[in-house]
Amino acid sequence: MLPEEQNERLTRVGRGTPMGELLRRYWIPVLLSEDLPGPDSDPVRITLLGERLVAFRDTSGRVGLIDRLCAHRCADLFFGRNEEDGLRCTYHGWKYDVQGNCVDMPTEDEDSNFANKVQLTAYPCREAGGTVWTYMGPKALEPALPEFEFNHVPETHRFVSWNVQECNFVQAIEGGIDSAHSAFLHSTLDSHKMNEAWREQGRRSGNLRDLYHARDKHPKFFARDTDYGVLVGSRRNTGEDKYYWRYNLFLMPFYTTPPSSPKQKSFHAFVPLDDVTCARWSFTYHLETPLSAQLVAQYRTGGGLHAALVPGSFHIPTRNKSNDYLIDRQEQRTLTFTGIKGTGEQDFSVQEGMGTIVDRSRERLGVTDIGIIAMRRRLFKESTDLLEGTEPYSAGHGDVYRLHAGDALLPTDAQWDEDPEVKKALAATW
Amino acid sequence: MLPEEQNERLTRVGRGTPMGELLRRYWIPVLLSEDLPGPDSDPVRITLLGERLVAFRDTSGRVGLIDRLCAHRCADLFFGRNEEDGLRCTYHGWKYDVQGNCVDMPTEDEDSNFANKVQLTAYPCREAGGTVWTYMGPKALEPALPEFEFNHVPETHRFVSWNVQECNFVQAIEGGIDSAHSAFLHSTLDSHKMNEAWREQGRRSGNLRDLYHARDKHPKFFARDTDYGVLVGSRRNTGEDKYYWRYNLFLMPFYTTPPSSPKQKSFHAFVPLDDVTCARWSFTYHLETPLSAQLVAQYRTGGGLHAALVPGSFHIPTRNKSNDYLIDRQEQRTLTFTGIKGTGEQDFSVQEGMGTIVDRSRERLGVTDIGIIAMRRRLFKESTDLLEGTEPYSAGHGDVYRLHAGDALLPTDAQWDEDPEVKKALAATW
Amino acid sequence: MLPEEQNERLTRVGRGTPMGELLRRYWIPVLLSEDLPGPDSDPVRITLLGERLVAFRDTSGRVGLIDRLCAHRCADLFFGRNEEDGLRCTYHGWKYDVQGNCVDMPTEDEDSNFANKVQLTAYPCREAGGTVWTYMGPKALEPALPEFEFNHVPETHRFVSWNVQECNFVQAIEGGIDSAHSAFLHSTLDSHKMNEAWREQGRRSGNLRDLYHARDKHPKFFARDTDYGVLVGSRRNTGEDKYYWRYNLFLMPFYTTPPSSPKQKSFHAFVPLDDVTCARWSFTYHLETPLSAQLVAQYRTGGGLHAALVPGSFHIPTRNKSNDYLIDRQEQRTLTFTGIKGTGEQDFSVQEGMGTIVDRSRERLGVTDIGIIAMRRRLFKESTDLLEGTEPYSAGHGDVYRLHAGDALLPTDAQWDEDPEVKKALAATW
Repeated sequence: MLPEEQNERLTRVGRGTPMGELLRRYWIPVLLSEDLPGPDSDPVRITLLGERLVAFRDTSGRVGLIDRLCAHRCADLFFGRNEEDGLRCTYHGWKYDVQGNCVDMPTEDEDSNFANKVQLTAYPCREAGGTVWTYMGPKALEPALPEFEFNHVPETHRFVSWNVQECNFVQAIEGGIDSAHSAFLHSTLDSHKMNEAWREQGRRSGNLRDLYHARDKHPKFFARDTDYGVLVGSRRNTGEDKYYWRYNLFLMPFYTTPPSSPKQKSFHAFVPLDDVTCARWSFTYHLETPLSAQLVAQYRTGGGLHAALVPGSFHIPTRNKSNDYLIDRQEQRTLTFTGIKGTGEQDFSVQEGMGTIVDRSRERLGVTDIGIIAMRRRLFKESTDLLEGTEPYSAGHGDVYRLHAGDALLPTDAQWDEDPEVKKALAATW
Repeated sequence: MLPEEQNERLTRVGRGTPMGELLRRYWIPVLLSEDLPGPDSDPVRITLLGERLVAFRDTSGRVGLIDRLCAHRCADLFFGRNEEDGLRCTYHGWKYDVQGNCVDMPTEDEDSNFANKVQLTAYPCREAGGTVWTYMGPKALEPALPEFEFNHVPETHRFVSWNVQECNFVQAIEGGIDSAHSAFLHSTLDSHKMNEAWREQGRRSGNLRDLYHARDKHPKFFARDTDYGVLVGSRRNTGEDKYYWRYNLFLMPFYTTPPSSPKQKSFHAFVPLDDVTCARWSFTYHLETPLSAQLVAQYRTGGGLHAALVPGSFHIPTRNKSNDYLIDRQEQRTLTFTGIKGTGEQDFSVQEGMGTIVDRSRERLGVTDIGIIAMRRRLFKESTDLLEGTEPYSAGHGDVYRLHAGDALLPTDAQWDEDPEVKKALAATW
Repeated sequence: MLPEEQNERLTRVGRGTPMGELLRRYWIPVLLSEDLPGPDSDPVRITLLGERLVAFRDTSGRVGLIDRLCAHRCADLFFGRNEEDGLRCTYHGWKYDVQGNCVDMPTEDEDSNFANKVQLTAYPCREAGGTVWTYMGPKALEPALPEFEFNHVPETHRFVSWNVQECNFVQAIEGGIDSAHSAFLHSTLDSHKMNEAWREQGRRSGNLRDLYHARDKHPKFFARDTDYGVLVGSRRNTGEDKYYWRYNLFLMPFYTTPPSSPKQKSFHAFVPLDDVTCARWSFTYHLETPLSAQLVAQYRTGGGLHAALVPGSFHIPTRNKSNDYLIDRQEQRTLTFTGIKGTGEQDFSVQEGMGTIVDRSRERLGVTDIGIIAMRRRLFKESTDLLEGTEPYSAGHGDVYRLHAGDALLPTDAQWDEDPEVKKALAATW
């Protein structure tokens, strides 16, 4: 239970708020590279941490992310002309480059130096992993990119998507870090039959999840602070002399990575667009082989962690709050726990259903919420530390992100968070 | 004319407001029984007196009306699974029965007693007259159901519907208690011809309305406080030695019953969903015979007092504020006073047209508004009395509701409100 | 740059605000005469300076503009019956004439004089130039109509339209008075070719614009206060011993007239509907000949300064903010500066794109903004003067409006604003 004041502190992201300032110390995924498909392609409106911006790719292929409104008389640069290495306002032709410099001001006299005095807010952008990343903090503190594994696998091994989610980013992170809900929200009604099938498959593959996941329906949860964020472990009895451990990571300031298969990994980022909306990013990748064309086609139209999007819309999910996620009550009665198609969409239904910013003074947390509590405390602590002058460690140390989720079978007396087997399971491969 | 402060007092219905507390002393119609058509049917969202709730019918057929959000982490129980005598949250499987008890909490250890400490707000529900009734007040004060006649006629003799109305409940009641508007809002342009036809019909049937209603276009209005609410009488000269009286009743806290035909009666309830929306209930019933299939079919698609609803919507009128009630100006010029089809829809056009909460400091009341003034005073008085510790009499005495509207032909020196002929005309038949 | 407090002062138009009071000293175009096509035609909703009104044409052809809500119980008179020289409320039949007098009150006794005490707010209306004009100020100060030329040419020589614009009126005026934007916002990409064609045409016609406009891409701007408002001149070098001058006028309180062709003139009025919406009026007329049927057909469907409207809507532009003005990015790359069709629509894209009330503390004004600064100062000064008791001169002197825009070729030492050639170019012809 969080009192209102703390809830505000946790969830507000505008410039000058404690959480907003913390977030502005990190590189942030803002667009797919393909959202700006080529030189001089159409400008794109994006709001990020409550700031209304416009993105464009210039003639040289560089990405600009600048204030939406022209410095002159505030016309909307979304309608601007993207031409010759700059975005030109349609009102009076003032033109800006990707650094926000006013590089042409045709309304002034030719000998005027007014243009030199005009500068739009502009955030540096870099591309990695098919994604445009930006940094909205103090120039002097601009760090290196976080060293995510998914940015370093070949393009063929990776699929990335994002969609608008109609709630504050923290309750989305809470869903991401919360392993306990999968057995309900994402389950089917024939889980007994499923579990049998999994076990059979596990006997052939040696996949730990297949073999052990269903053996204990009341896993114990553990959480520990780390340099990158919070490590959450769930421990299951196996009926043998070992525990089956699954690991879910929260990485500062808004990433989660759920335990998935041994070779195919996934991350989420929940990026605040403003206080009441976030972008839910899904990074799926295989460590060794290309994703099959069939799988990619499935992801593109909504599959795995990737939501189905309204064709022609700017990352709006087809199944969304306004249509009750196209819930099918008959399917809910006979096939799946929710009657809602899509893992992401199932998450939206609970996370958005709470209201845009959930009132955490009402909640009643239980034993499975240990990771959530640890994540909130971490965000609080880091934002408080920053207020007091201590920069967040992970922002400046991109190497701490060289991890992925995983699982392990450990002796009952092993250190759940320190055992070499665990470290190996969680280490990135590059 | 009501100053703003009094208008607020009259119209606000949230928990803790004087009017909200008064309303919470009464049983309230909340859903049609057929809105929850069978055991384990789909949950239904309903907001009542500003409280966001979800209703469901459990496996045993009992109706639950509980807080919309799960006690755990506030997921929306509308998306919940209605199964085995409880509504189960899709996020982590917490399950609630119709009393709001948490009856299963699968995320906790098997020996945990956390579930016993968790309780959702739940309001008791009863079904009568094809309607689900609820009581949102203090448990200790829960009264018996009001003894409305329509709950006691055979099901075949009755038709009940409700629709969302986009204004505060008080201005809807004001329309219900106001007999003077029928001669305008609900009239046709050939009323002279109509009156002739009625008189002819009256000569055959002896129906008082047919014989006398049109003889006096300036009826006098009278109002008197009663144990159930306010009795409003309108007196017409007949050109003979008797007066023709018609009676319209306001019954605490939001019922009206307009004078209709001798054997077919009707009631309205205007139930606040929140401060700016109400549910307009229409109860039509015949005292002696079943309603014909033809009549019921007509009511179902919009007829009599029953509004036409958008198919598949949750009680949204087809003719509504957003489409100007599909007003037909040509029809208004040539056939009807409004050019709007439907008695209810005609009411909506004037009641919703005032704004969601009418500014009563602007109004100029006249001689026909006597009933309205009496109704407001009554609501004020009862809410003030309750604040001072006096419980509303009618809430605890369901027998005062054994009435219906009616009319009477009385000697000019008779007591308009006490004459035995009047009491007979207004008495319920069971 | 205007601080927020001054921006509020400049833009707010409600009754009692300094700017609202100033505007209420002037006649205001409110509807096309054809919006009320004939006696007893359908009532029309209109909000003007933030006041919710209803307009109707009575049986005698007079136009009424009265409070939207009935004096009795605030029913919406838009749904009223327009009959026998008055608008009758559908609730209880109270009827109002064009002066707002209650001329029938059928709910009261026949000998009642209550109707005589009831009066709705009503504003006097006059028709001129196919337009209904109203005056919302003190009765005693009601002036004569402004003597606009377009009201005095034959009906065949004139085309008038209006459309809803989704922003405050001042930023719309700023667009109207700003000649500098035409070379960008309203330009095509082949302007070089266009300029050649114009020059060729100019050599034949002697039209000054065709000959000289393209010779200087950095005109100098000058502004001067006048009795009617502000005269803005733009000076171009011609490469000869004369300057080419173009004149753009701001006429109090919301008119602009852009320099156009020698014989065909145009005016705009930007009338505040409320603080965040205005009506953009366009008056096009020829001084000597009828507009061709082809031209009128073009204006009717969106052409010249006239926006294309959604058929059946009440003056809503087809290309509007909600659909990004149907911008065609391919067309923007290859044909026009904006990719948006329509001069008006191009203006909307920049004026509405700023937000409903632009934050003028962000702007950076340049040398081409001289007219805008002068216009704002004038509105400020006049509203301050009025607060201090000085009535606006132009409101009471309709003859100052006998002007139109124009251009002139002047010796380099001529008075740009006083030369007889200028006065001739700007003088109305009647």
